[in-house]
Amino acid sequence: MTGITTRSMPLLVVENRAFGNRSFCAINEGLGKVMRFGGNDAEVLARLAWLRDEFGPLLGKALRASAVALNPLIARGLAMGDEMHQRNVACTSLLLRSLAPTLARVGNAHSLEKAFAFIAGNDQFFLNVAMAMGKSILDPARGIEGSSVVTAMARNGTDFGIRVAGRGDEWFTAPVEMPKGLYFPGFSAADANPDIGDSAILEAIGLGAFSMAAAPAVAGFIGAGGFADALAYTRAMSELTVGQNNTWAIPALEFRGVPIGIDVRRVVETGIQPAINTGIAHRRAGVGQVGAGVARAPLACFEKALRALDRP
Amino acid sequence: MTGITTRSMPLLVVENRAFGNRSFCAINEGLGKVMRFGGNDAEVLARLAWLRDEFGPLLGKALRASAVALNPLIARGLAMGDEMHQRNVACTSLLLRSLAPTLARVGNAHSLEKAFAFIAGNDQFFLNVAMAMGKSILDPARGIEGSSVVTAMARNGTDFGIRVAGRGDEWFTAPVEMPKGLYFPGFSAADANPDIGDSAILEAIGLGAFSMAAAPAVAGFIGAGGFADALAYTRAMSELTVGQNNTWAIPALEFRGVPIGIDVRRVVETGIQPAINTGIAHRRAGVGQVGAGVARAPLACFEKALRALDRP
Repeated sequence: MTGITTRSMPLLVVENRAFGNRSFCAINEGLGKVMRFGGNDAEVLARLAWLRDEFGPLLGKALRASAVALNPLIARGLAMGDEMHQRNVACTSLLLRSLAPTLARVGNAHSLEKAFAFIAGNDQFFLNVAMAMGKSILDPARGIEGSSVVTAMARNGTDFGIRVAGRGDEWFTAPVEMPKGLYFPGFSAADANPDIGDSAILEAIGLGAFSMAAAPAVAGFIGAGGFADALAYTRAMSELTVGQNNTWAIPALEFRGVPIGIDVRRVVETGIQPAINTGIAHRRAGVGQVGAGVARAPLACFEKALRALDRP
Repeated sequence: MTGITTRSMPLLVVENRAFGNRSFCAINEGLGKVMRFGGNDAEVLARLAWLRDEFGPLLGKALRASAVALNPLIARGLAMGDEMHQRNVACTSLLLRSLAPTLARVGNAHSLEKAFAFIAGNDQFFLNVAMAMGKSILDPARGIEGSSVVTAMARNGTDFGIRVAGRGDEWFTAPVEMPKGLYFPGFSAADANPDIGDSAILEAIGLGAFSMAAAPAVAGFIGAGGFADALAYTRAMSELTVGQNNTWAIPALEFRGVPIGIDVRRVVETGIQPAINTGIAHRRAGVGQVGAGVARAPLACFEKALRALDRP
């Protein structure tokens, strides 16, 4: 993570130094009533204005002075119970700890206190950075002829779409499913919107539900069970991938690497739908996030992609 | 953790609010050449002077303004791979994150930057706090008539001593053993001092080697094996305790509580020596910490304590 742009809304910049490409993300606003999940009232807008005018520029100064290497940070986070999708408490805390000296040097006391309080109150602060990192890792794989590896998964609340390396920028879509999960107090499955968001890029790089075995505490939070269930998720998802990333190890699997590279052929052969640890949005605009759970990628996306790959 | 005294060397204060007693600890200096492990040269003394004159007073101001609840912090740390003896990266990071807003309010920019950099560079910063917490938990159990539960374990490099609840302040001692472990670059077992330090209080409250299953990454660091070995340590230590503390859960054991309350009768009956995750000091004064490993409590301490308990 190397910088921030501050023209209008600030964006964090993730740089893939091996391939020279960059990805971008907004600053995570927190849980509940936030714009990312459809919130848009005065409280939401005031927070966004603060992120734009005060927090973003402060964070930008710190990141320009000392960039953060993400690869070792993810490795540490996996040994500390994060799967980087619905649980980012370790990476958020490690990131704050490593940036704090620089923030103290470049910030004034008042904005510093508010910035630290914001990060202290938001365990998911790191999530957006992880998403941009996912895109920066997978973008260079777009356009590898004949490759059946998934380079993106995303949902817009109506359709679920995937891209595969062998078909460049083409999307293969199917109707999106409902997530199954747990709800914040006062909400239930009746409030849920169908699966939505571009965070499923994390599962495409072996994090999220694919690394559930590293984060048994998240399984309880999203209603996916206990420790044995968390292991079962990672084992099942390992059936779908072309390999494992040994620089990102899962302690509870004797430090085996996370499963990476979803192969559409394996998905179609096994009939196992890729799992996604996801936030759940309210179906009505303006309410925001109301829960978290597991969504499944529709098989039809993978079947369509496979047929396209097999066309001469 | 509620305050700090600053008369000469500052001490952190841990308060057991249920029983009204307090324990104290010095500020952790880091790994390697530190006074706690026998280091005493100009670099060591300069760091201690800074802790006394600048860092201690700053931390004291922050803690007086906002005390830190340790019980939930330990619970989070166990879900994040700490066993609080040889691995404290989660609790250190969470502590810094929760104190950062207050530190920013009470500190000036220069001392703040140095303080954050010190904590960012010391994954074991939380260790001493955990030790004082251990003493604050066990002290109220001293003097419970007939109880065979261990209330302290400590080593001075020559002898290993334990206290049991039914015998108040009496120590039961035996010659200390050598730790087995891994060494920092340039050092080997030939440099090691026999087992030393009062940190074994952590194992007496179910942390350290007793919670190895929560911290598989530490098993590699101290040469105790992989994930399966980490589980085996906690299972073996569970044979020795009177119960488990369910507010401190171990995810990899389906969120079972840490084993707590070492029973001298169980130790003597099973012949299993309590394990201790320990730092290893150089045998020569002035060098400091040279490695980390597992030490074992000598059975003779427990046999002596049991004989004393059985005396009419």
